[in-house]
Amino acid sequence: MKILRFGGGRWGILEGETVVETDGPGGNPTGRRYDLAAVRLLVPATPSKIVCVGRNYREHIREMGHDFGQDLPKEPGLFLKAPNALAHPANPRDPWNTGEAVPYPFFTQELHYEGELAVVIGDRMRRVPPEKALDHVLGYTIAVDITARDAQRRDLQWVRAKSADGFLPLGPWIETGLDPQNTWVRTYVNDELRQEGHTSAMIFSVAEILAYISSFMTLEPLDVVLTGTPEGVGVLNPGDRIEVAVEGIGTLHTRIGPKEVRPW
Amino acid sequence: MKILRFGGGRWGILEGETVVETDGPGGNPTGRRYDLAAVRLLVPATPSKIVCVGRNYREHIREMGHDFGQDLPKEPGLFLKAPNALAHPANPRDPWNTGEAVPYPFFTQELHYEGELAVVIGDRMRRVPPEKALDHVLGYTIAVDITARDAQRRDLQWVRAKSADGFLPLGPWIETGLDPQNTWVRTYVNDELRQEGHTSAMIFSVAEILAYISSFMTLEPLDVVLTGTPEGVGVLNPGDRIEVAVEGIGTLHTRIGPKEVRPW
Repeated sequence: MKILRFGGGRWGILEGETVVETDGPGGNPTGRRYDLAAVRLLVPATPSKIVCVGRNYREHIREMGHDFGQDLPKEPGLFLKAPNALAHPANPRDPWNTGEAVPYPFFTQELHYEGELAVVIGDRMRRVPPEKALDHVLGYTIAVDITARDAQRRDLQWVRAKSADGFLPLGPWIETGLDPQNTWVRTYVNDELRQEGHTSAMIFSVAEILAYISSFMTLEPLDVVLTGTPEGVGVLNPGDRIEVAVEGIGTLHTRIGPKEVRPW
Repeated sequence: MKILRFGGGRWGILEGETVVETDGPGGNPTGRRYDLAAVRLLVPATPSKIVCVGRNYREHIREMGHDFGQDLPKEPGLFLKAPNALAHPANPRDPWNTGEAVPYPFFTQELHYEGELAVVIGDRMRRVPPEKALDHVLGYTIAVDITARDAQRRDLQWVRAKSADGFLPLGPWIETGLDPQNTWVRTYVNDELRQEGHTSAMIFSVAEILAYISSFMTLEPLDVVLTGTPEGVGVLNPGDRIEVAVEGIGTLHTRIGPKEVRPW
């Protein structure tokens, strides 16, 4: 089942090309139906927090200049993205004229894409063991973890590097029926394949990540967890078109806007 | 004016010992009035994000082992706390029997207090220059930035160290009439003075911090910004009583709960 959020904040289910409005995420039909091509899609979550895993594919750790030999992380390395970073997804029926463009902020010269599988929480989780963690998942969606790589190197913590306005395009919808450890994540920039990772190569599984987070941090319904990016990250320029495709979910289309000027 | 949040999520104004209920933060009276001693106080904000300054008093930078000579930060060093960290404040009329105790989590052996002045945003801010930043402030309250110092040293990013459940007692209310650069922040642990800093000693003023954040991150109404801690941070033990007093606001009382066991 594909769950989506649209219009002024309504929820729906996608049936073919029709959006069947529901009274909540995965809820009951209200009777109203719309053509998918006609609706404005919104970020399919309203998270109180967004928790991300920094290094969860071996080859990405290597490309970031870290030798992993004996040093494979023993626990997920987490960071946060703030909700102001969320950018509404494009409508896949008109991908380059809808959705929110990502601003290219004044403080960076090195904006990067990181395509990722994202988890949307269904039920509150606190101290949930790995074997029960997936019971609390509503479903899966697609994220571009936009990163100002130069600011990430420069700053002690990654607030500016990861949480500037628009740094988290998310969507276009939530797929409830996915096996999170058996799918491909592929990122294309201007139609060229740049990242390709299979989620079976994750160092920490989705269940392990969620259990770990919930051991000290209560996860709330519609919170979002990003599961890390495969190798192949790289630079973005104003006007670039990014597609992140996750097999079984669909494709998230994102444009990079013009370079912003310093505000004062 | 002192603005508070209480009961199931209602807002009010404190007049002497009376809570005058209002229809929103700093809003119009509803006609209902309560004795302060009888209400359950809540965190006086509902932030979409909590942005914190890491090193904003010179002597605290020094005590954390950093020589500041030429290296005084040129920009505020930010980190995030997630909203799950918020802990409801004690009622100052019965400070040791009300409010939420801070859990002492299983993953740390070195829990620290950091007493701070906190800012509550009133109006949305995006790219607001320093000279206009304070116009967007609703008022000021008091925070304990609870920190797992050992996890902070160990982890690349400070999620576990700063955002475990209950790591941000905040309150007891918002004072709208404070001069944020002309007040004292004092922290007492078990009645002993441990931290004493004057906000005129901040490296970055509140106006500079807010303007800096808003240059890349839109601040929303009721978002919270922590302004850094003065020198004198130190360890906490289960059962400890913390008081953070900010002249002109009042005192936030916090208890440390028992040590939690590993969840599995």
